[in-house]
Amino acid sequence: MRFTAEQRLDDGVLERAFTLGEIPGILWTPGSVSAPAPLILLGHPGGLHTMYPRLAARARHCAAEGFAAATIELPGSGDRPRSAAAEAARADLRRALAAGEPVTGEIVDRLVLPLVDRAVPEWRAALDALLPLPEIGGPVGYSGGVIAIGVRLAAVEPRIAAAVLYAGTFVPRALFEDARRVTVPLLVLLQWDDETNDRQSALELFDALGSEEKTLHANMGGHTGVPWFEGDDANRFFVRHLR
Amino acid sequence: MRFTAEQRLDDGVLERAFTLGEIPGILWTPGSVSAPAPLILLGHPGGLHTMYPRLAARARHCAAEGFAAATIELPGSGDRPRSAAAEAARADLRRALAAGEPVTGEIVDRLVLPLVDRAVPEWRAALDALLPLPEIGGPVGYSGGVIAIGVRLAAVEPRIAAAVLYAGTFVPRALFEDARRVTVPLLVLLQWDDETNDRQSALELFDALGSEEKTLHANMGGHTGVPWFEGDDANRFFVRHLR
Repeated sequence: MRFTAEQRLDDGVLERAFTLGEIPGILWTPGSVSAPAPLILLGHPGGLHTMYPRLAARARHCAAEGFAAATIELPGSGDRPRSAAAEAARADLRRALAAGEPVTGEIVDRLVLPLVDRAVPEWRAALDALLPLPEIGGPVGYSGGVIAIGVRLAAVEPRIAAAVLYAGTFVPRALFEDARRVTVPLLVLLQWDDETNDRQSALELFDALGSEEKTLHANMGGHTGVPWFEGDDANRFFVRHLR
Repeated sequence: MRFTAEQRLDDGVLERAFTLGEIPGILWTPGSVSAPAPLILLGHPGGLHTMYPRLAARARHCAAEGFAAATIELPGSGDRPRSAAAEAARADLRRALAAGEPVTGEIVDRLVLPLVDRAVPEWRAALDALLPLPEIGGPVGYSGGVIAIGVRLAAVEPRIAAAVLYAGTFVPRALFEDARRVTVPLLVLLQWDDETNDRQSALELFDALGSEEKTLHANMGGHTGVPWFEGDDANRFFVRHLR
């Protein structure tokens, strides 16, 4: 991992851009740190540059509770090389949504499974690189982004101690097997009328997750309408489980 | 309304027993009140004496945020006269649950509809009696208890400004009409494996509620397993909407 730029934000948070091999990422650490900070991995749908304002706001929100936060670019997003197969699947998904047709499992599998298979080892590699930093301790939380990535990561990566999952994107049925293996405390967010997801599938996924402690927060509105107070709730969830 | 007893609890909360005609009730007001306090009506399944420890704990939790809290006995519970028809319906419900049989709409209607029809005017009468007290202002919240009572009360009583509803008991289909008329902000609690309720019906009721701002919090476990942090979440919900 190589740091490529840094700036101090107005609330004292230190923001550092880094590259992990060819993968760009960002690390935010609280301004005043007395002990190594727990780390929250910030998931997102891909496209660090476009997502930057929202990611930075979430990171500052985390830092206000004494957490470090980090994110990396997804495979095939931002400046990373596109996958022709993923682009074709994404076009099919958009076509189905625009036509009001059901999104078939075949489209979801083609779009999401290769992404999960590539992304999860990269997030684990990011943990390998970030956790040795003296300003970062454990435990680690994962928050938001493509829920299939969060589910697989929580299932296979023992350093993830708690996760906030956003049920806002389609989940391949194969990932339900991963879901059953998840045991860490979970907070699952669902937008009740999410135009890019299926409510019943999201409820089935929540049911399938293996964790004894899991909470579903469902709010009215569409994909981008998650209410502001859920950010506070996520912070309190991580305070309960990472401190 | 006539106050019949009072005691000061160790955290300074003033607890007063009262009767409203023949209905017993309890009012809790915060120890230090500078302005009239918003009021939260504490719902319960019936039986003030049995429920007292939990009601008092919830009331003190409310008082810690500066809210007054009040409750009244339900028709046919505690020391109030039993209804033979309700007792027969309750016996049928218990029999169905014990036998693992589906609880029919007919049993639910016989058990819950007369209760709602009798209880809701009593809670409204309690508001008439409580709100003129100088230590109580508005607005009013309703929290917990038999969800069918909360739904009807929120639908017909304009002084209810926000409600926390516990989807932990059966709801007659007729109450879905009331649900659609509810417009105040709602926080709906659901225990995912509630042995005394049907999950799918609870989700349908949440969907039917007319409020633009409604949030569902679903947690693992059975009817009595609502996690402690939901008490904090309910307080924060009322702070957002009653202050």
